[in-house]
Amino acid sequence: MPKRPLPVKKRRELPPFTRDEFEHRTERARALMTRERLDAMLITSEANIEYLAGFTTQFAWNTPTRPWYFLLPREGEPTAIIPELGVTNWRATSWVDTIMSWPSPRPSNEGLDLVKRAVLGVKRSYSRVGVELGAESRIGMPVADLNRVRDMIRPFDIVDCMHVTRELRLVKSPAEVERVRRMCQIAGDAFDNMGALVKSGDTERDLVRKFQADMLMRGADKTPYAAIGSGPGGYDSIIQGPTDRKFKRGDIFLIDTGARYGGYFCDFDRNFALGKPPSDAAKRIHELLFKATNAGIKAARPGATAADVFAAQAKVLEDAGIALGNVGRFGHGLGKVMTEPPSNMPGDDTVLQVGTVLTIEPSAIFGDGKILVHEENLVVTENGAQLLTRRAPREIPVLDF
Amino acid sequence: MPKRPLPVKKRRELPPFTRDEFEHRTERARALMTRERLDAMLITSEANIEYLAGFTTQFAWNTPTRPWYFLLPREGEPTAIIPELGVTNWRATSWVDTIMSWPSPRPSNEGLDLVKRAVLGVKRSYSRVGVELGAESRIGMPVADLNRVRDMIRPFDIVDCMHVTRELRLVKSPAEVERVRRMCQIAGDAFDNMGALVKSGDTERDLVRKFQADMLMRGADKTPYAAIGSGPGGYDSIIQGPTDRKFKRGDIFLIDTGARYGGYFCDFDRNFALGKPPSDAAKRIHELLFKATNAGIKAARPGATAADVFAAQAKVLEDAGIALGNVGRFGHGLGKVMTEPPSNMPGDDTVLQVGTVLTIEPSAIFGDGKILVHEENLVVTENGAQLLTRRAPREIPVLDF
Repeated sequence: MPKRPLPVKKRRELPPFTRDEFEHRTERARALMTRERLDAMLITSEANIEYLAGFTTQFAWNTPTRPWYFLLPREGEPTAIIPELGVTNWRATSWVDTIMSWPSPRPSNEGLDLVKRAVLGVKRSYSRVGVELGAESRIGMPVADLNRVRDMIRPFDIVDCMHVTRELRLVKSPAEVERVRRMCQIAGDAFDNMGALVKSGDTERDLVRKFQADMLMRGADKTPYAAIGSGPGGYDSIIQGPTDRKFKRGDIFLIDTGARYGGYFCDFDRNFALGKPPSDAAKRIHELLFKATNAGIKAARPGATAADVFAAQAKVLEDAGIALGNVGRFGHGLGKVMTEPPSNMPGDDTVLQVGTVLTIEPSAIFGDGKILVHEENLVVTENGAQLLTRRAPREIPVLDF
Repeated sequence: MPKRPLPVKKRRELPPFTRDEFEHRTERARALMTRERLDAMLITSEANIEYLAGFTTQFAWNTPTRPWYFLLPREGEPTAIIPELGVTNWRATSWVDTIMSWPSPRPSNEGLDLVKRAVLGVKRSYSRVGVELGAESRIGMPVADLNRVRDMIRPFDIVDCMHVTRELRLVKSPAEVERVRRMCQIAGDAFDNMGALVKSGDTERDLVRKFQADMLMRGADKTPYAAIGSGPGGYDSIIQGPTDRKFKRGDIFLIDTGARYGGYFCDFDRNFALGKPPSDAAKRIHELLFKATNAGIKAARPGATAADVFAAQAKVLEDAGIALGNVGRFGHGLGKVMTEPPSNMPGDDTVLQVGTVLTIEPSAIFGDGKILVHEENLVVTENGAQLLTRRAPREIPVLDF
């Protein structure tokens, strides 16, 4: 691959989500809340507040000083309970117009009395309020405050609601899928520009900075994740770096990126060889992973399970006698978070639906502890998987170096 | 200010923290643990795992699928309890060489049995294990799993340890301060390059992407926070955006950025006017904020409190009859997180020490609901505050437009 830079294509921004979209999400959420016997959900995580309320901010998630709460009752008005300095930001981005606010920071009571008042105003049918407690959750408030809220809102009990938000987000709307697709296009262009980015003398750190900058210039909003592995003939980890290691002719390197556009992630990687073709061993593994990826893509149909998608990929590698990578799964859900449920692994019987967005990510161990990995992103449609990434080349591209 | 681009100065990377640095942190941590009667701390947040164990990764904090635990006992071996796929990454970056790992994802038991085994192996003097529960904490594991751990580790009780990590991190070592300073230099250069970045036809979104890319090309590792406010003659929020608003001649805009180098943040902002000088009202407020900032810098001495630093700034504005901004404080601690304790506000009696890193951030309301803000970063030394940012210009710079 030559060093010619790929021109930056200026793409029109995707439109904001419609009011209809949020009404539809709310309706689905409330149906699930009824099924799960929840009177309300008290939401504090970035992904779920943004998903349900449309509130978009960088601020709330970069400073833990002030918590932000969103209360979605099964019946009645959804309510933002937020620090005073955030009211303008909330009004500018959310469809929810009932706002309670307090002057924050106020460490002795960060909005807890307002949370109490809002929860006790909810129509009580089941005496249960859902909070993000279960698998893969991270609450956006101190646990000590959650424990205080638990005592303040009796007779309501706090129970887990991750199964509700998980089920909601497992099916992406067309507008959500378009955002993942856009981010995949942007990152794909930056990967195609790799030959122009990598220069003699660069360290992993240098290249990762340039790659992130390139994605931003092509339209990414944020580049929170860009891991790199490099080494002579291959790399030994796919989740770490960048380090101060300088690239050398004969290296194989991988960049794996989770970058964000319009509140949605891509998550895929690409492999490159520097200056000379990879070894026959690396070529063979790469070809097998290419085939395993094809098998995973083919298996990602409505009605199949995440475990089926794993099995299809694993079979290709196992039939060839290859050791599976140590990642613990061969891909996962993708959307507002870089990794969402389900996990493509044995035992995950989540049924894929039209609108499920997945990564297909087989990995294999070879040589002296080296690992090689592929990754593509797709959406499940009625007619099977539709790729959101441009498929990686069948052979590892060799960059001039 | 003309449009000439500021050349990118290639700076040498700062060296990694020494083993001595981590031994010193551990020693201080253990002294505080003794004072607080903690047998161990079970740490799960990015900032505190990185601070205590040196473990550096992008992966763990971008995917909530797998939790990562670090157990620091008051006596005996510190232990990493981490997913198998992270062992190579841990060994490459942490000084801690006792590692327990499990094949993850394993939703039924994400390392909880290992946490139990590790905690029950701790020498029990007080029967208390500290976990990040208190003010400004965000735990890095699901609350439901924490509740399971609570039951599994009896007779140990789980109690808050945020006062320990807060007190530890309130005093930065010279190597930590250098990282904040480096990040301030990088962001300062990108701010000085603003005249070359902003182009006719740009939206806030376009400019923020270019600004983030510029910081990366100048050596930033990550650009998680870059808020912008813009409008004719001034802006009305300092924590939101970017939006699709196109810049116009006569605008005043602000960018506030929290970007990261070597695991440490800068957090400061700069104001600009486009094409013509700001109004007299804006000039007057800017001048007052400049003076308030000076007063805050002067007040940031060892032995002063965060409340004193607030009062010094507020006095300048109040003496001039100016309405204070709605941010709730005039600056805060800074380091591994974009906002750390203390808060420069009435009632925060945290005593500043040599090595405390602070932002000074007065804001004022003017005109029809407009806000203007200044921000500088400093470290408290024996001789008073030393600026880590290059001081903002006394007058709002006017960019060609």
